Amino acid sequence: INRLASQIRLGLLVVQPDTIDFFDRQLAAPANIWVKIDVGTRRTGILPTDEATLETVFAKIERAPRLRFRGFLAHAGHTYAARSKAEIQKIHEETTTILKDLKARYRARFPDLEISTGDTPSCSVAEGWEDVDEMRPGNFVFYDLMQVQIGACRPEDIAVALAAPVVAKHADRQEIVVYGGGIHLSKDRLTTAGGQACFGWPVRLNANGWERPDGESFVKSLSQEHGVVKCAPAFFERVRVGDVIGILPVHSCMMVDLFARYVDVHGGRIEKFVFGK
Amino acid sequence: INRLASQIRLGLLVVQPDTIDFFDRQLAAPANIWVKIDVGTRRTGILPTDEATLETVFAKIERAPRLRFRGFLAHAGHTYAARSKAEIQKIHEETTTILKDLKARYRARFPDLEISTGDTPSCSVAEGWEDVDEMRPGNFVFYDLMQVQIGACRPEDIAVALAAPVVAKHADRQEIVVYGGGIHLSKDRLTTAGGQACFGWPVRLNANGWERPDGESFVKSLSQEHGVVKCAPAFFERVRVGDVIGILPVHSCMMVDLFARYVDVHGGRIEKFVFGK
Repeated sequence: INRLASQIRLGLLVVQPDTIDFFDRQLAAPANIWVKIDVGTRRTGILPTDEATLETVFAKIERAPRLRFRGFLAHAGHTYAARSKAEIQKIHEETTTILKDLKARYRARFPDLEISTGDTPSCSVAEGWEDVDEMRPGNFVFYDLMQVQIGACRPEDIAVALAAPVVAKHADRQEIVVYGGGIHLSKDRLTTAGGQACFGWPVRLNANGWERPDGESFVKSLSQEHGVVKCAPAFFERVRVGDVIGILPVHSCMMVDLFARYVDVHGGRIEKFVFGK
Repeated sequence: INRLASQIRLGLLVVQPDTIDFFDRQLAAPANIWVKIDVGTRRTGILPTDEATLETVFAKIERAPRLRFRGFLAHAGHTYAARSKAEIQKIHEETTTILKDLKARYRARFPDLEISTGDTPSCSVAEGWEDVDEMRPGNFVFYDLMQVQIGACRPEDIAVALAAPVVAKHADRQEIVVYGGGIHLSKDRLTTAGGQACFGWPVRLNANGWERPDGESFVKSLSQEHGVVKCAPAFFERVRVGDVIGILPVHSCMMVDLFARYVDVHGGRIEKFVFGK
């Protein structure tokens, strides 16, 4: 972190006052401190009503010569449980109200403080970003079936697919098996309207990306290395063992982490960026 | 595959007759062919009753000069749905009966044919391996919570844990947050007796491995990079932000794939074997 802090304008996230003591002892270069606020996700963060803890944080930052209070940061991860634009909008309004109230309360003391938020569902469809200084969506780079289910994007916005070879066809159960399992797609899943688990959608890969063969075929189960695709009749008839089909992921962030590089639609290789490699 | 086939005694798995034509055209070195039998998992494999397809397979192998029929192979993956030794034993008996019947039926024609099976639950607790020529368990190397739930091992048999730093404590909800999420543990999960999702058990790491602080604390949710651990009171009181705790995985195979190397209890590094690297 000291190497990074000497090269870039580093922002560090704090959720506990003690962490500031640690940074004060260990950091050799200046850094900005963002205070993480729990806006309802209940994962990490200081509750916006917990003024005593916020005061402890400010006091500790003020005593640390290399640290500067930068502002309040949130991740409204509970939008992932939303299933419509209206639900996302409601969470977004609660989130921005909390952050704007904090900004208003402490602006006299810290004139430059900023507020930062930005889960992908809110950044995709919510209205009302006045006074928000920074957005931080990540999943929007590729989108995925989870974002479709939430209502954050349309299926045609999904910009990444797993290339999976078909290794078996089973006519009696209208299923194909692909080489492509939890090791490649991650075990993230959706529950379909019919109550079944869905681990992805099979698509046909083409020179421009992909096209969905129908609205019924889906990946019904994943083992470690393999996936079982329940197929609509027309798709089943056309697909052959040895074909490479695409699988649209339920959660693109988890899937792309499992590969060292991507291949674009023209066959070009895109290496992943790894800091310090 | 040609490079491998020229260096080792290579066994290839076949689930469709057409694949043998492909091997015959492409393989430059000799190889053994195992025929995958579906013993009830319904993922891949030829049904043991499908004599016509088996005959097609044998005929194609006989016409391929570099291919030799080696035997029948199965993976009784449906033992993963078992929840007791008796259930595992029942599936194991069905599996071995199917394979032994096939061996008896075709032994006159292929005197050297062997049968191979070996899901981890069966290999761990099932009795009756006479006439089975090869066992192939994989998960038993480390075991995990899934195998505990199936009844294949005891908790103290689990030989791998994720080292996860504690990044936040939340006294109001008796939860800690660790740096260690789906990216590290995979999203495999169990359902607890109380109907809750469980993504792992927190343990204390020590010089000999790990010890479980209590029977109640568990990982209740995973996001991409973080896990939320619901803690029993004594564990919550003792754990501090900055501590590195262990997380026993739900599925060790999926977890270990996510790391480049392991660290043993004495601090030694164990690199993963990657063929051709």
